[in-house]
Amino acid sequence: MRNIRIELEYDGTEFCGWQWQPVGRTIQGVLQDAGKQLLQQPIKIIGAGRTDAGVHALGQVANFKCESDLDLSAMRLGLNSYLPEDVRVLSAAEAAERFHSRFDASNRVYRYMISKRPRAIDRKYSWFCKYVLDIPRMKEAAGYLVGSHNFTAFSRINKDEPHYLCDVMSLEWHEVEDEVFMQVRANRFLHNMVRIVVGTLVEVGRGKLSPHDLQDILKAKDRARAGGAVPAHGLFLVNVNY
Amino acid sequence: MRNIRIELEYDGTEFCGWQWQPVGRTIQGVLQDAGKQLLQQPIKIIGAGRTDAGVHALGQVANFKCESDLDLSAMRLGLNSYLPEDVRVLSAAEAAERFHSRFDASNRVYRYMISKRPRAIDRKYSWFCKYVLDIPRMKEAAGYLVGSHNFTAFSRINKDEPHYLCDVMSLEWHEVEDEVFMQVRANRFLHNMVRIVVGTLVEVGRGKLSPHDLQDILKAKDRARAGGAVPAHGLFLVNVNY
Repeated sequence: MRNIRIELEYDGTEFCGWQWQPVGRTIQGVLQDAGKQLLQQPIKIIGAGRTDAGVHALGQVANFKCESDLDLSAMRLGLNSYLPEDVRVLSAAEAAERFHSRFDASNRVYRYMISKRPRAIDRKYSWFCKYVLDIPRMKEAAGYLVGSHNFTAFSRINKDEPHYLCDVMSLEWHEVEDEVFMQVRANRFLHNMVRIVVGTLVEVGRGKLSPHDLQDILKAKDRARAGGAVPAHGLFLVNVNY
Repeated sequence: MRNIRIELEYDGTEFCGWQWQPVGRTIQGVLQDAGKQLLQQPIKIIGAGRTDAGVHALGQVANFKCESDLDLSAMRLGLNSYLPEDVRVLSAAEAAERFHSRFDASNRVYRYMISKRPRAIDRKYSWFCKYVLDIPRMKEAAGYLVGSHNFTAFSRINKDEPHYLCDVMSLEWHEVEDEVFMQVRANRFLHNMVRIVVGTLVEVGRGKLSPHDLQDILKAKDRARAGGAVPAHGLFLVNVNY
């Protein structure tokens, strides 16, 4: 039994998210369909991150087991020939038998794109924020989130979550022309965490919260004091590290 | 009567091109509809470049006459509120009574995006070229096109065209990560000219034509010797200069 590791790019716009659903177009679903057509056997795709509806990926990692003697290049090209154009396999590699794309990941990087102006081109890849944002203030606030913290205040409540501790290794804001983006690396992310963090930092950037409030919100573990979740279409899973 | 000059960004994917048609969604059409709703009078939008179906714009320029005392900011925001999200008015300015966005333009800049790999994100904004391209060779070939030439070989035949002379002021190729793009400035462009130029230079890049062949093709004025037109979705009208 081979264990194949693939790297994926996808446009989340037309998907109900990563995870397979009985009804609804999902990335896991179209991958499993493509794999079955190519390899003539049912395959189970395991993804490193279960992205939500509308969230994009530049470098999602997944793995699947199969019996096949197709070489890796034919595997990649073959999957792409059966996949819809909004999902592309960027690379395929042989993985160790025990490799598990989700459990073995040491950290993941997400990016959230904000546009300072309404746009036609790329409108599905960034969120237009109508407020003027004070970026240095948002950077200061972001500093309170770096490190190991309980992110209950920044997560949708989820009774399947074993705990709310996350180790945020870095959280940076960058400005490029008329866009601003946040890039965050952590060992794990809770449900809606990146979008709530961005929503809260936007409140800081427009002056509704002070940078120091972030420390209090973290400590209080109170979802109601953090900001709302910004829309999914600005969010990208950038890569997964092992 | 005021004469308003607007700058536009649009995603050409879902349009049958710039020019109004009795049936079919066009950029001119949705602008005229939005203007009529906002200003409560029929308006005639004149565009600097009549982009084809599927072609995008980052900085198209247009103008229209109207009787209205709306200030320019309200004009821009009002038009955007009535426009579909794939067309955005970037700016609105008062123009001289005789300003004509097409006739007064001194030059236009187009960009053609080529992706070296299949992509999911931005797949509607660049053409995936499966051939390995020799960019220095394409740059050498492009040099023969700069200057004043008869571009009959690089145009769709069009009996309304008064002549085929174009002054190509610059034509550059750039590589950025896994994309390559051509940017070209000229006083005027013939129908399909940019896409045929790119198609012909791609033939040079993959070794089917030599750079020097471009000189012969220009002189022969023979459409059949130039390459095919590459797809519309990689093409952007970048800006228009006066």
